[in-house]
Amino acid sequence: MRPWHDGVNALAAAIPLSAPVYLLMDLVGNPIPFVLGWFGGGSVRFTKGVPPPVESQLLAYVLVAMLGYVGTRKLVPKIKVYTLRRGISGKDLGKRGTSLADKDVPEALGIVPGAVFLICLTFCLVGYATTNPSKLLDCNSALLSICFMLFLGFSDDVLEWPWRYKLLLPTVASLPLLCCYDGSTSIVVPIPMRSWLMNEGSLTTFGWLLGHIVTVDQNANGAILNLGMLYLVYMGMLAVFCTNAINIYAGINGLEAGQSFIIGCAVLLHNLIEIRDNEAYRENHLFSIMIMLSFVGVTLGLLGHNWYPASVFVGDTYCYFAGMTFAVVGILGHFSKTLLLFFIPQVLNFLW
Amino acid sequence: MRPWHDGVNALAAAIPLSAPVYLLMDLVGNPIPFVLGWFGGGSVRFTKGVPPPVESQLLAYVLVAMLGYVGTRKLVPKIKVYTLRRGISGKDLGKRGTSLADKDVPEALGIVPGAVFLICLTFCLVGYATTNPSKLLDCNSALLSICFMLFLGFSDDVLEWPWRYKLLLPTVASLPLLCCYDGSTSIVVPIPMRSWLMNEGSLTTFGWLLGHIVTVDQNANGAILNLGMLYLVYMGMLAVFCTNAINIYAGINGLEAGQSFIIGCAVLLHNLIEIRDNEAYRENHLFSIMIMLSFVGVTLGLLGHNWYPASVFVGDTYCYFAGMTFAVVGILGHFSKTLLLFFIPQVLNFLW
Repeated sequence: MRPWHDGVNALAAAIPLSAPVYLLMDLVGNPIPFVLGWFGGGSVRFTKGVPPPVESQLLAYVLVAMLGYVGTRKLVPKIKVYTLRRGISGKDLGKRGTSLADKDVPEALGIVPGAVFLICLTFCLVGYATTNPSKLLDCNSALLSICFMLFLGFSDDVLEWPWRYKLLLPTVASLPLLCCYDGSTSIVVPIPMRSWLMNEGSLTTFGWLLGHIVTVDQNANGAILNLGMLYLVYMGMLAVFCTNAINIYAGINGLEAGQSFIIGCAVLLHNLIEIRDNEAYRENHLFSIMIMLSFVGVTLGLLGHNWYPASVFVGDTYCYFAGMTFAVVGILGHFSKTLLLFFIPQVLNFLW
Repeated sequence: MRPWHDGVNALAAAIPLSAPVYLLMDLVGNPIPFVLGWFGGGSVRFTKGVPPPVESQLLAYVLVAMLGYVGTRKLVPKIKVYTLRRGISGKDLGKRGTSLADKDVPEALGIVPGAVFLICLTFCLVGYATTNPSKLLDCNSALLSICFMLFLGFSDDVLEWPWRYKLLLPTVASLPLLCCYDGSTSIVVPIPMRSWLMNEGSLTTFGWLLGHIVTVDQNANGAILNLGMLYLVYMGMLAVFCTNAINIYAGINGLEAGQSFIIGCAVLLHNLIEIRDNEAYRENHLFSIMIMLSFVGVTLGLLGHNWYPASVFVGDTYCYFAGMTFAVVGILGHFSKTLLLFFIPQVLNFLW
């Protein structure tokens, strides 16, 4: 390992992060009045019951994410002593033939970013509770689902569950999320398929049959299908898919954390663009940004230790935690279909 | 071990449970119309937005608790194979001199009642979401705090954290609870101490000094102190105390689970009496009953395996999980001061 490796790696990590950071700086502009506003000074005033300005929220989330990065970065070397002592470790097959091949690499270090992430989000939750209680329920259920998966992932690393538990428990873990989902359950039908449902203002036979399971919006001339409960089932399956998707590409140094980092940056970029261009769903995207910023922060902190030559392995703990985090932002940010676009490599691997 | 031991143990377990069960049967009366009501029949009808009748809720919680009991009872022998394989086990010092002394006893089996409990409550949460959304936030934050403690407890059993983490993390885990607390932050001042605060309708010097930290209600003539933020701090400390309180008396077969079982039954009895006699805070006590019934169910399932001669140890996992559960019902059920009465042996040991 040569010293300039670190510089190259830092540069590589900066590439996916550059676009969201640029947009963030563009959105926030001059941060000083908002920072002053937190301490009761400056021109930005807070009113109880009214959410603070977007810029102020973004700045606070960035700050929490930075603390998350530093915390993970510093804690991983400390905690790896504990997992190594317990024998939760593996051999790195990618280092065969080198002098590092026989060294035990501590496993399941995903517990550190996971725990730091939970702590970060708990502080965001406190912020929500004091300024913007309308999103408190979403934030709670998001944390609950992620915490449940973190627990499941860590116990899987330690005890190695059989497959039936691994499929059953994520489904249960996603239930709180679905209970709190209050968004639309409708989907827009692609234009060429609309004529299958409606023809000259009346339902076709296929549309009539389909009408027994879902609601075809006859006013929209077949353009909108309200899936109702089926949409919730789809979202539950999305959660199970996401938790396993990160695990699909696993086993190479830095691959789990690396792909999560890139997907996280992509989601962040999507949210920031939506906030800039679209007033309507701003709150949902801000919520997603809150979660994603902390997530990207802790992932980056982990990546530094997990990159080749890895000094720690992330384990199922990290894969489950990361997957559930993406499912949570997709569902509660109301962009669960867009989310799947970011998962194309994993979807392809899954379908193969 | 003789076969009549099982019978004696079952009888011993039935004693603390008898009073709550009697009160439950008294409250519910004839269950048939309510059970029929769940399936859309019978004379009991549900209206959307209106909470279902108390009897119907109680019956549903009893059913969930029974499933929790059966699930824990069946799963513990299966899961103990996994923890034993990983070497998470200990020697039982209470069996020295017997033929069982050298046998490894699997540790950290509190993970089973914990996970079953979370699943039970998730289903209760789904029930809440569909019938009584006003308590959804409470239920989510309760589950979040308990899940966080379960995760912390299990990772402590596996990795053996130093003390500083064990004090810091329960504090963070209790934050979501405090954020969602919307009850009173006032306390009633005992009669002999009221004259210290107010004298002939005006504040005394002591009362005036105290008024800088808390709010003295001058209309109530010193009878009521509004502690505000201090009350939240007290509740946060209660959570930390409870999580460690069960651990104070630990180390003898069945002691952790046994004391939790008895405290659980006592809390249940308190709630049931309040529901019978007092209309005002019925919803909070029902919420507490929901949590406590599932908790008593899974604890009883565990106790069967943990009673002398124990075939499993419960570990810190169970102690933390049980303690946080009590803190949660105390805080969200708004009887945090009464709760401490049930913890008198632990408080004495703590102060000693």
